[in-house]
Amino acid sequence: MRSTFDPPTDPRAYRFCHQVRVRFAETDAMGVVHHAAYLPYLESARVEYLRATGHPYDELRHAGAELPVVEVAVRYLRPLRFDDLVDVHVVVASVRAATVELGYYLAVEGRPRATAVTVHGVTSVTTGRPVRSPRWLHELAAGD
Amino acid sequence: MRSTFDPPTDPRAYRFCHQVRVRFAETDAMGVVHHAAYLPYLESARVEYLRATGHPYDELRHAGAELPVVEVAVRYLRPLRFDDLVDVHVVVASVRAATVELGYYLAVEGRPRATAVTVHGVTSVTTGRPVRSPRWLHELAAGD
Amino acid sequence: MRSTFDPPTDPRAYRFCHQVRVRFAETDAMGVVHHAAYLPYLESARVEYLRATGHPYDELRHAGAELPVVEVAVRYLRPLRFDDLVDVHVVVASVRAATVELGYYLAVEGRPRATAVTVHGVTSVTTGRPVRSPRWLHELAAGD
Amino acid sequence: MRSTFDPPTDPRAYRFCHQVRVRFAETDAMGVVHHAAYLPYLESARVEYLRATGHPYDELRHAGAELPVVEVAVRYLRPLRFDDLVDVHVVVASVRAATVELGYYLAVEGRPRATAVTVHGVTSVTTGRPVRSPRWLHELAAGD
Repeated sequence: MRSTFDPPTDPRAYRFCHQVRVRFAETDAMGVVHHAAYLPYLESARVEYLRATGHPYDELRHAGAELPVVEVAVRYLRPLRFDDLVDVHVVVASVRAATVELGYYLAVEGRPRATAVTVHGVTSVTTGRPVRSPRWLHELAAGD
Repeated sequence: MRSTFDPPTDPRAYRFCHQVRVRFAETDAMGVVHHAAYLPYLESARVEYLRATGHPYDELRHAGAELPVVEVAVRYLRPLRFDDLVDVHVVVASVRAATVELGYYLAVEGRPRATAVTVHGVTSVTTGRPVRSPRWLHELAAGD
Repeated sequence: MRSTFDPPTDPRAYRFCHQVRVRFAETDAMGVVHHAAYLPYLESARVEYLRATGHPYDELRHAGAELPVVEVAVRYLRPLRFDDLVDVHVVVASVRAATVELGYYLAVEGRPRATAVTVHGVTSVTTGRPVRSPRWLHELAAGD
Repeated sequence: MRSTFDPPTDPRAYRFCHQVRVRFAETDAMGVVHHAAYLPYLESARVEYLRATGHPYDELRHAGAELPVVEVAVRYLRPLRFDDLVDVHVVVASVRAATVELGYYLAVEGRPRATAVTVHGVTSVTTGRPVRSPRWLHELAAGD
């Protein structure tokens, strides 16, 4: 993993929180949320975070850039269950020349459920080649 | 529903059979396969059926046509469970000017689990507008 | 299909509306929402409807009853796209001795996207056998 | 991450290979397989690996043990596309007192697509508490 960020279980380490209601379709025969279903939660959280910063994902794509996931890592601490209201905390952990790293902390009523990291390329919509990260992404990482 | 086909629970009424192994990810907290997970099974069966007829889906797309789903109906008869090996029987029930109707019968070890119907448009990849169904699709329906 | 309800594309025919934001994970290579992804939208809408009526799904399960899906039918009218905010209108179309039928209308900014019907058994959590529909379900259908 | 295994892109480092055909439902609006869809591929591969060793997952559960995923990490090297036939190579990287670590290498026609690691608890089906890893799991790791 290129990722170096170790996401803490403290909501104050994050810049944004998106709530997700667990769907029944996301549970499995162990009676809990299937581990693959967490990845769309992370995705929704970063989409909503970008929207909240005034730079929605569609704007990014219209500007010719995409953020494909090149790495993902999740630590499952306690199961999520049907109908849980999950707080997905998110932070831009680092922005390099052509990659962005985000950290996540998932909690239910303040109790830890999971942490996660995603690393994204910054690539051209048309060529798929790396492009420079937009300035505003750098500003998010800097905490401005 | 535009569909008029009532799919029988007799494998002899179908022209092709594709086997699917139930994944754990497809189960839900009732301990059975979630009802939404059946739709990708139908999709896999029709993709494999087209491949077996010598007209793989990619060929269709390269020829400029797509088969978007415009209607789907499923009857769930008995639950599917993790690790079940499901026989997905499929038949082209009818082909009209710009729609195709397929019927499905799902069974495990010969015992009925579900029946289903999908209705597809025949549309242009570029414009999304209806186009004429290719001749070979008509021949599949005629049972040639 | 046992279903006899033909869901109209008029929001006034429905009793409840639940909003769903389309996730990127729900799109497919045609650039639109995959047809299977609509089923969890319907599920979320009925879970939220039951919650809004004061009879959340968990209460039903604690009372020993489940509502497994025995039939589903969807008509796809216009594609849904990434980031669409979908209004999922829902109504209890009929309640019989041991089945419940719900109707759905999906729209984006007032424009039709899909209609759907689900038929549910009313079964015992422990035995899986049919049980009588609770009185409050009958009242929902009657429109009280 | 507790994981210490760095999965190589050499098939000879793995003990088993399971083939998965990419479903259209698993693609997204970028025209490639959605990153969350890889996790069920890993799951299928380990289920088939256990079956091939003569210790199917059901046997494990009947013996009272489960292998819940406690960590997952994926590196996406090149996109997977609709209809790709994916070789999912798998190896038991290590077995400790109450955790098991598996490594994966995904390739299409011998060309690298992704690597992954999953870490599993070994827990009781009834209590959810850690239990000792069965002897045969240790033997898999030892390469017997």
